[in-house]
Amino acid sequence: MTRPAVAIEVEARAGEARAGVLSTPHGRVETPTFMPVGTKGTVKGLTPGDLRSAGVGVVLGNTYHLYLRPGAEVVRQAGGLHGFTGWKGPMLTDSGGYQVFSLAHRRKISERGVEFVSIYDGSSHFFTPELTTRVQEDLGPDIAMVLDECPPANASRKYHTDSLRRTARWAERCKEAHSREDQALFGIVQGGLYPDLRKESLERTVELDFPGYAVGGLSVGESREEMLGMLALVAPELPADKPRYFMGIGDPVGILQVVALGVDMFDCVLPTRLARHGAALTNDGRINLKNASHRRDLGPLDPGCSCEACSTGYSRAYLSHLVRENELLAPRLVTLHNVHFIGELCREARAAIKEGRYEAWMGDWISRYAGPRSEISLDAAP
Amino acid sequence: MTRPAVAIEVEARAGEARAGVLSTPHGRVETPTFMPVGTKGTVKGLTPGDLRSAGVGVVLGNTYHLYLRPGAEVVRQAGGLHGFTGWKGPMLTDSGGYQVFSLAHRRKISERGVEFVSIYDGSSHFFTPELTTRVQEDLGPDIAMVLDECPPANASRKYHTDSLRRTARWAERCKEAHSREDQALFGIVQGGLYPDLRKESLERTVELDFPGYAVGGLSVGESREEMLGMLALVAPELPADKPRYFMGIGDPVGILQVVALGVDMFDCVLPTRLARHGAALTNDGRINLKNASHRRDLGPLDPGCSCEACSTGYSRAYLSHLVRENELLAPRLVTLHNVHFIGELCREARAAIKEGRYEAWMGDWISRYAGPRSEISLDAAP
Repeated sequence: MTRPAVAIEVEARAGEARAGVLSTPHGRVETPTFMPVGTKGTVKGLTPGDLRSAGVGVVLGNTYHLYLRPGAEVVRQAGGLHGFTGWKGPMLTDSGGYQVFSLAHRRKISERGVEFVSIYDGSSHFFTPELTTRVQEDLGPDIAMVLDECPPANASRKYHTDSLRRTARWAERCKEAHSREDQALFGIVQGGLYPDLRKESLERTVELDFPGYAVGGLSVGESREEMLGMLALVAPELPADKPRYFMGIGDPVGILQVVALGVDMFDCVLPTRLARHGAALTNDGRINLKNASHRRDLGPLDPGCSCEACSTGYSRAYLSHLVRENELLAPRLVTLHNVHFIGELCREARAAIKEGRYEAWMGDWISRYAGPRSEISLDAAP
Repeated sequence: MTRPAVAIEVEARAGEARAGVLSTPHGRVETPTFMPVGTKGTVKGLTPGDLRSAGVGVVLGNTYHLYLRPGAEVVRQAGGLHGFTGWKGPMLTDSGGYQVFSLAHRRKISERGVEFVSIYDGSSHFFTPELTTRVQEDLGPDIAMVLDECPPANASRKYHTDSLRRTARWAERCKEAHSREDQALFGIVQGGLYPDLRKESLERTVELDFPGYAVGGLSVGESREEMLGMLALVAPELPADKPRYFMGIGDPVGILQVVALGVDMFDCVLPTRLARHGAALTNDGRINLKNASHRRDLGPLDPGCSCEACSTGYSRAYLSHLVRENELLAPRLVTLHNVHFIGELCREARAAIKEGRYEAWMGDWISRYAGPRSEISLDAAP
């Protein structure tokens, strides 16, 4: 048996929380790790050098968008996403399934795959498990994902049952179609908010023996509590020697909560999207740089942060001015900060796990973050 | 007599062209030098570190915009533009006169000053020579400019005559009001396209004995030829031992032409604005990254360029993708390139002047730049 392209070595546990090292063809990454989203082959506003300086491990790319623009063939000829974007570290692409189901106005699902209409030009496309696997082989990330359906939480039990079984059959076809030995293909557990369906999806997916597993289908209409409940059910049952990826969480509190349940990797557009709206994550909570209180504040964005935006003399007053004036430098600096901040949070979580005091540390951290100086309440998170 | 805050040492001449060193309170700058425009306290998309890496000497700020947003007081409290923006090298601010006359829908000019309406919120403001001088002392650049009127080229002779005389009286009041010894206040020669009025403005301005002189009032409705004709008339008459600043030129050919006439410093939004539209200046001419020919081009933007965008592996295909998708990284990288490119052009011009072969070098450079591989014709420049 060949050594898998991607594997995890779990170094320490604290409760269900895990600290480990993910090994990939493009390098090793300490876990837990937040993966910033480079939807169209760029984490908005940042260079690969910025991402390195922010301590990023894995960068995400989006199959749906890259397949449509600039096309997998252009990326393949450039040497895959690594060559095309200049990011030489580990990468992961989703299968595009989530976008097909969340973005497309019109789609038609069948056993064979899913027909959808491009958000760019209205052209028709058909994603099959075989096609999304081949496209991801062209894109060339270290980790590819199976094509899955991600139904809304409020879909019927019957719909969720049919869907998870189809997703499992698609997963098998993806595995069959996958041939790159320098790329790992991860399975995805679905099943909505039905505990027994989650269990069924888990069993059907694990049975296929993937080198890593994602838990998906959340953040689509369900509450944070419901989401965590499902994850608490599924995560401990996932193979302990394989990486665990929770899809779509990026607020600090949520990250700490899923880490507590044994997740190693997670992604979300939130930290980067917030930044483009002038919202910064700080050790005193989330702040909105448009608020009048920052207009004359000559202090740094976050005195506890060592990112370029915080450590090279930019004041909140200056950043607030840039945000108000829609200056290009604003999203660049605040995105860099938010990505660095989440990276640092993961490094702190990792240290706390290794010291066996994750739960206590997490409680302290959350009460500080959501404390009186925060501009959002915890209830309003993310 | 105190040593002036800003002075030039002319090291070499080739015809009228000069190579020199400008000394300022924030450092020395080799001339000729292109000054990128940081209208609102930021060269769009770039950090001070980027500007240093692109070899930038002087950065411009805009009094009109900064006075309105965030206000001179906020900037002053942050330690002036140097403290506010983090750019520690030489800076220059215009007086805001150009914006009052080019942006404001309503304005009312009188001997005392000019009343105008803010483009931001319609509020009324009144710029006097005294106020714009004080505002620039708060903003704290190395070089401040007198308040001038810049009438359209097609205004009547009578209008231009009255205007240049008022501008000269305003210049005197600016000088009277100016008190910072660590800041130089430059005069501005106006006079439209009337040779005798240009001469009169020159004499009235030089009579006031400024530490440096700008030639203004061009690029407002006149042709490139007319502009160069006026400059050829004025430049040789400016004091040879003072810096000469030509306002508002930034296309490569135009830069070489004004340098040939003895100009040391120049600014324009063109290189940075072009970048935001996906147009890059290269040694083969200007190219538009949106053109289909770049979609699969795996070569660098400009093989002859050492800027971050050209030397760290980004292909034209990738940059073209970023431009098409309106990704934030596109203006950042192309702006950095264009600013670096113009800086390099100035350094090459300087070397040619010092070697006494400026005219021949300039001819060669222009025919290469405007040659068959360029995507614009020379006639269409800028």
